[in-house]
Amino acid sequence: VGRWSTTTLPYGVVRWGGRPPRPATAVGDDALDLAGLARDGLFDGVLDDPLGTLEHPTLDRFLAAGPSAWGGIRARLLELVHDAGAADRLAPHLRPLDEVSPVLAWTVADYADFYSSREHATNVSRIFRPDDPSLPAAWDHLPIGYHGRAGTVVVSGTPITRPTGLRRDPATGEITSGPSLHLDVEVELGWVVGVGSDLGTTVPTTAFADHVVGAVLVNDWSARDLQAFEYRPLGPFLAKSFATSVSPWIVPLDALADARVAPPAPPHPPAHHLAPAGDGYAVRFELELAPGGSASTVLSRPDAAGLRWTPAQQLAHLASNGASLRTGDLYASGTVSGATREERGSLLELTWGWTDPVMLVDGTRRRDGLADGDEVTIGASIVAADGEPIPLGEVVGRVVPTGTRGHLPPQ
Amino acid sequence: VGRWSTTTLPYGVVRWGGRPPRPATAVGDDALDLAGLARDGLFDGVLDDPLGTLEHPTLDRFLAAGPSAWGGIRARLLELVHDAGAADRLAPHLRPLDEVSPVLAWTVADYADFYSSREHATNVSRIFRPDDPSLPAAWDHLPIGYHGRAGTVVVSGTPITRPTGLRRDPATGEITSGPSLHLDVEVELGWVVGVGSDLGTTVPTTAFADHVVGAVLVNDWSARDLQAFEYRPLGPFLAKSFATSVSPWIVPLDALADARVAPPAPPHPPAHHLAPAGDGYAVRFELELAPGGSASTVLSRPDAAGLRWTPAQQLAHLASNGASLRTGDLYASGTVSGATREERGSLLELTWGWTDPVMLVDGTRRRDGLADGDEVTIGASIVAADGEPIPLGEVVGRVVPTGTRGHLPPQ
Repeated sequence: VGRWSTTTLPYGVVRWGGRPPRPATAVGDDALDLAGLARDGLFDGVLDDPLGTLEHPTLDRFLAAGPSAWGGIRARLLELVHDAGAADRLAPHLRPLDEVSPVLAWTVADYADFYSSREHATNVSRIFRPDDPSLPAAWDHLPIGYHGRAGTVVVSGTPITRPTGLRRDPATGEITSGPSLHLDVEVELGWVVGVGSDLGTTVPTTAFADHVVGAVLVNDWSARDLQAFEYRPLGPFLAKSFATSVSPWIVPLDALADARVAPPAPPHPPAHHLAPAGDGYAVRFELELAPGGSASTVLSRPDAAGLRWTPAQQLAHLASNGASLRTGDLYASGTVSGATREERGSLLELTWGWTDPVMLVDGTRRRDGLADGDEVTIGASIVAADGEPIPLGEVVGRVVPTGTRGHLPPQ
Repeated sequence: VGRWSTTTLPYGVVRWGGRPPRPATAVGDDALDLAGLARDGLFDGVLDDPLGTLEHPTLDRFLAAGPSAWGGIRARLLELVHDAGAADRLAPHLRPLDEVSPVLAWTVADYADFYSSREHATNVSRIFRPDDPSLPAAWDHLPIGYHGRAGTVVVSGTPITRPTGLRRDPATGEITSGPSLHLDVEVELGWVVGVGSDLGTTVPTTAFADHVVGAVLVNDWSARDLQAFEYRPLGPFLAKSFATSVSPWIVPLDALADARVAPPAPPHPPAHHLAPAGDGYAVRFELELAPGGSASTVLSRPDAAGLRWTPAQQLAHLASNGASLRTGDLYASGTVSGATREERGSLLELTWGWTDPVMLVDGTRRRDGLADGDEVTIGASIVAADGEPIPLGEVVGRVVPTGTRGHLPPQ
């Protein structure tokens, strides 16, 4: 991952030196302790209770504090970071990023995942249903999605234990149980809800920035053989519930302003609750695979700019039936894929249904999905108004064999 | 609902007299304040920190305390309730149930819902796919399920706002948006996880009682028109996420001992992680519908005894891919339906796809699902060894029109 820009100022939670985890931002190669800054009074007047909000082992209170608090803290941080005279006030609260351990930054309330890439949905239809490769009937009318398992959202760096499950051999029809034979990744863009909504009310697309604090990078690990067997008629379940990795740092919405793009023109006017569409985001992903101990291969570079449904539409859709939103809700785009092979965000698509192997720089190949020991890194960046790329961090996970207890990073 | 037996002793959280909510049990027509008993020292020696565990606005700490604490408290309560000499020690902590307000008793972590009734799955296949009414390929091999929205699990009594959404007219193909035209109920048996499990590990069916504290009654409200349009390929989403009602009282596993039955013989040996099957539970439901202000009609009496998958199998399946369980996880059976019309647990089935109206005692009929103002009550009981029915409480919800803010019970 590149150095963090001095304008991104993402939110995370880190620990170092045996102290309890605390909220931080990242600047350059350093973590900057937000609880420490609050204790020094540097957020006084910016929000009601800086220390109560920030001296906490999660970002939960900060998320719930809402847009004026988010904006106030961000404005103050921008001021401090760009004021040479403030350097001595920041210094005691800086710690090199490679000396801190990120933890999951917030309590994930509900996790929903969408299916917003036309190219991904089309590829999946073509691979799985070659006789009828049309998109699902509802796909262009609403953001199709499902709920995932919030309790298995893990922070980047958490090892991913290969899941076991039942699958049917497509050739013989035989049903067997065992470690997944087609373990896959999904490159996704996720959004974190700070401010919830009440049961029985709806949320317009125009209220996106009142509710969403920022974006994370998501790897929605998927066991494709388990998925193919279990998913009718209630959707993916154990094929995805074993782990979903998120980047440690939430990139504030304001830091993504330069990435805003108009979403693709829809084929017909949207339903009332999905209009206006709001902004798309040109987030450029890089999907890398490094076999255990070997060099890394860039597999693809998907871009979220072309997604059919915007995050504002996804949020409005989630609440359009009167469902409440809660602080900590996470929702993600679904696999981001583009029109070319180089833009495919899953191995299912890159290998075109496990037929066309992906070549790695160490000379090995992957035809059937991830091997044990493989480390997957999804990085992302946006392009600033001046043309410079601005990194958004990365989400990393290494596959460990079934039966290996997935040891969590030291807490 | 009948008077609570002196042997059931369910766990709930109630409020009265402007005090914060507190854990309670129910005996006869009274709530018995567990925090009060703890304060009086009546649980001393029974668990490590009775007051810290029980003087809390939810059951979360009690759930996490595990089977020995659950068993200890239950044994002590049974002793106190059946000891005439203890009456004066209990008296200060009793309050008539009709003077207390139940609140959601615990923090729902993840909510998963299964599809365990062969008759329900068969009916749905026959109604929706008459040309190919076979069960899904995986149905007899594993407990098919999906994740629901934990944040919209509500306590019995919470009004249910009719959800709005997109649906396709089956006759014309026209896609419109509006309040659901086919609002339905699902009679379900739910289970509450007290003790979680670690990521990357599995849970055998034989460990069921080490993890699950007890059962609740569930109404998994469903907007069938929305569901039919949105569910391919990722399963039900907004059609169910607007609300799931649960009974206020968790019935302890030990109180269900007399209801244990052998599950139906499976058509083939189960996969390794689903054996041994564990117990089925003969829980007899009663589904009632009362139009606003009118008398109640019993629509059906499903029985959970015949479910294909046991709660122990469902729990083991949830964790079989290495997914962690958490304190507060809720999982439910899916609609409980039996072989006859009188045992169908949803209006979709009772009206056979909105063709055969249900007649109500007030002379009205329901062909297309619930009307605004309808109050649905799902009650349940088991039969004790001596043949006496033992009530398990009820879950109630009244449908309010779209646009009516769903006012929650006073908190």
